[in-house]
Amino acid sequence: MLSTMSDADLDALAQKTEAEFADFRARGLKLDMTRGKPAPEQLDLSSEMLALPANRDFTTRDGEDARNYGGLQGLPEVRELFSEMVGAPASQIVVGENASLAMMHDCLVWAMLRGFSASPRPWSQEPQVSFLCPVPGYDRHFAICEEYGVRMIPVPLTGHGPDMDEVERLVADPSVKGMWCVPKYSNPSGDIYSEETIARLAAMKTGAPDFRLFWDNAYAVHHLTERRHEIADILQACADAGNPDRALIFASTSKVTLAGAGLALFGSSRANVAWYLDRAKRRTIGPDKLNQLRHVRFLRDAEGIARLMDGHRQLIAPKFAAVDEALTKYLDGLGIARWTQPAGGYFVSVDARPGTAKAVVALAREAGLALTPAGSTWPLGEDPDDSNLRIAPTYPSLEDVRVASTGIAICLLLAAIRDERTARAAA
Amino acid sequence: MLSTMSDADLDALAQKTEAEFADFRARGLKLDMTRGKPAPEQLDLSSEMLALPANRDFTTRDGEDARNYGGLQGLPEVRELFSEMVGAPASQIVVGENASLAMMHDCLVWAMLRGFSASPRPWSQEPQVSFLCPVPGYDRHFAICEEYGVRMIPVPLTGHGPDMDEVERLVADPSVKGMWCVPKYSNPSGDIYSEETIARLAAMKTGAPDFRLFWDNAYAVHHLTERRHEIADILQACADAGNPDRALIFASTSKVTLAGAGLALFGSSRANVAWYLDRAKRRTIGPDKLNQLRHVRFLRDAEGIARLMDGHRQLIAPKFAAVDEALTKYLDGLGIARWTQPAGGYFVSVDARPGTAKAVVALAREAGLALTPAGSTWPLGEDPDDSNLRIAPTYPSLEDVRVASTGIAICLLLAAIRDERTARAAA
Repeated sequence: MLSTMSDADLDALAQKTEAEFADFRARGLKLDMTRGKPAPEQLDLSSEMLALPANRDFTTRDGEDARNYGGLQGLPEVRELFSEMVGAPASQIVVGENASLAMMHDCLVWAMLRGFSASPRPWSQEPQVSFLCPVPGYDRHFAICEEYGVRMIPVPLTGHGPDMDEVERLVADPSVKGMWCVPKYSNPSGDIYSEETIARLAAMKTGAPDFRLFWDNAYAVHHLTERRHEIADILQACADAGNPDRALIFASTSKVTLAGAGLALFGSSRANVAWYLDRAKRRTIGPDKLNQLRHVRFLRDAEGIARLMDGHRQLIAPKFAAVDEALTKYLDGLGIARWTQPAGGYFVSVDARPGTAKAVVALAREAGLALTPAGSTWPLGEDPDDSNLRIAPTYPSLEDVRVASTGIAICLLLAAIRDERTARAAA
Repeated sequence: MLSTMSDADLDALAQKTEAEFADFRARGLKLDMTRGKPAPEQLDLSSEMLALPANRDFTTRDGEDARNYGGLQGLPEVRELFSEMVGAPASQIVVGENASLAMMHDCLVWAMLRGFSASPRPWSQEPQVSFLCPVPGYDRHFAICEEYGVRMIPVPLTGHGPDMDEVERLVADPSVKGMWCVPKYSNPSGDIYSEETIARLAAMKTGAPDFRLFWDNAYAVHHLTERRHEIADILQACADAGNPDRALIFASTSKVTLAGAGLALFGSSRANVAWYLDRAKRRTIGPDKLNQLRHVRFLRDAEGIARLMDGHRQLIAPKFAAVDEALTKYLDGLGIARWTQPAGGYFVSVDARPGTAKAVVALAREAGLALTPAGSTWPLGEDPDDSNLRIAPTYPSLEDVRVASTGIAICLLLAAIRDERTARAAA
């Protein structure tokens, strides 16, 4: 433990670590561990799609011309293809464009300007709208709330979802209209919501009659181990609890097929799907059905999706292992940091010694390593403990991930040592 | 002239026309003239795109991987390709997904919830927001206003744009925040806004400091004659008049390449583009860049666009001629209807005898002809004269357009005759 180390031992470790940092910095590297982007090799798994659906192959299962206008909800064969992944019947799925974030954004915007059927008034006419935000969480969720003046209330994650006692207490406030949830392999903590968590989210008594779970199941099929974790059926749980319209499910193929040219998916109750389509029809005549055909021709069925995801896993699981290895090598037993060994998803979440996350990012930058800004996993970028860091190991090569992880470990250690020495000097 | 015809002549014409209608109805046809959709043969002009960009051809001009995330504004090569069509420098263009309607919708929604930089407050916090709506106009524009509670004020079109005296008078009202404009080959009237109209729109004094022209240049390159009509540069006109941020230009390739899988385009001042991107970045990481590459590879340059549009013209101009021929044959000289011979765009606008448009649509339905509902070219579907009808001749085959146009002409005539006889009987 760093905190119980003798001053002499601490000085020795400081000297050694400062030297390691100087050596690392001297290599003049330029590595980026900020973005949850698939690597080129992952995209190559779907490169066949670039020549699909191919000339004259534009007829849908129902005999429609996919090149022309129409089809607001998405082709039935696409909705069937993703029914299992989304966790909703095909009839209760809407296919969007390439970004599920856009579907979340639009749901919030439409709630603001129009409200849901159970809304006393459009949310923008409420004195205050609040969302519960499990932390650490996804910065782009928080950015949408910030944009539209939604107050964000952090709720701690436990490893199997948010602290439900806290959630149940907070959600009694009628200003709490929504909650962000990444229920499987949560970004960045890796939380997998337990059956009990999901049952309580579905059943809890909310102050707002039009409370909505923004259920961003972004990593539904994005396993990092051979175990394909499953979570409880949120739509069913909500229906069983008498709250059939509570959950808005979002998913996409951005990290299944092609990150910039995937399909976004929305799934919910019949009433919410009707509400969504009634709004969406003012915005567009219909989505890009050729990209939908492209996905059907390439993926074929749920087994095709699973096979493709196995390919992704084989490419990226070693990168996650490399992060863990480096952090373990430098930090194990020192009690200065905790990090996740996620079973899926795209991130490793690191809790650095409190008060040092910003310093770690600054050290890393000095050493040529780009890290996601400290605080970005918290609403408004404000981590009260200045502790959480998000590491995204998928995009760089395995060798680069190895090198960068070593650098990150050194920075985490050095920041902690400097902080400890400052504390001792002040004592 | 029907109105000056003797009772005996009118009776004879009535008998003849009732018989023609009965014969037409007896054919048991089923023809649809409602939708401004390209015909399959038009889509075939771009069928090469279905196999583009092809395997491994995913690298943008700047060396980026178009398969991955990013590129919020759109690829520079795409923005250059469409710079002439949009009428804005490439740096002042944003490429969207497949629907320019969505970009219009989002601009209004963002104005509602956030406002523009010159807005005293978000539009949703104003006691009233009004838009000027040149009529006849596009029903989907009006539907967006209706959805968000925007009051719509009809303004007559003159043949070279809206009645500018009326516009200048109305726009002094500070609740008037915007105006829909389809400046070239207007939907459905075919109006081409004159240089003077555009100069006055750019320079007029508005009551609202954040007034915006929603400039839907949907038919920029959609000529129906060999003359490629040009309109004045709205961005330049606004800048010259000291109102640089007044115009929001929208365009798309929906009726250039593939209707369901085209590219939407937004062009405006630097400040408005920055505003747009600052909003859009909350909604998406970026648009589908593979579809952008597909367009670049296929169209290549402005000349490529023009050549493709010549191909469209050759396919659809005969259909417009067929409409005109049938209407002329049955209605010429009777003074009961006026119709357009558009120089571009997708529609023929018919002003039926006032008070008979709904009757014409009902007769047509009886005879197996689907026409766009009467009134749909007016805000809230309310044509005070019950006169305007929109005919969409592009989608059916030339032979079907011939038959349907004859049917429409008979219905227009029969409704007018019945109305005239009722009027005489009541007199």
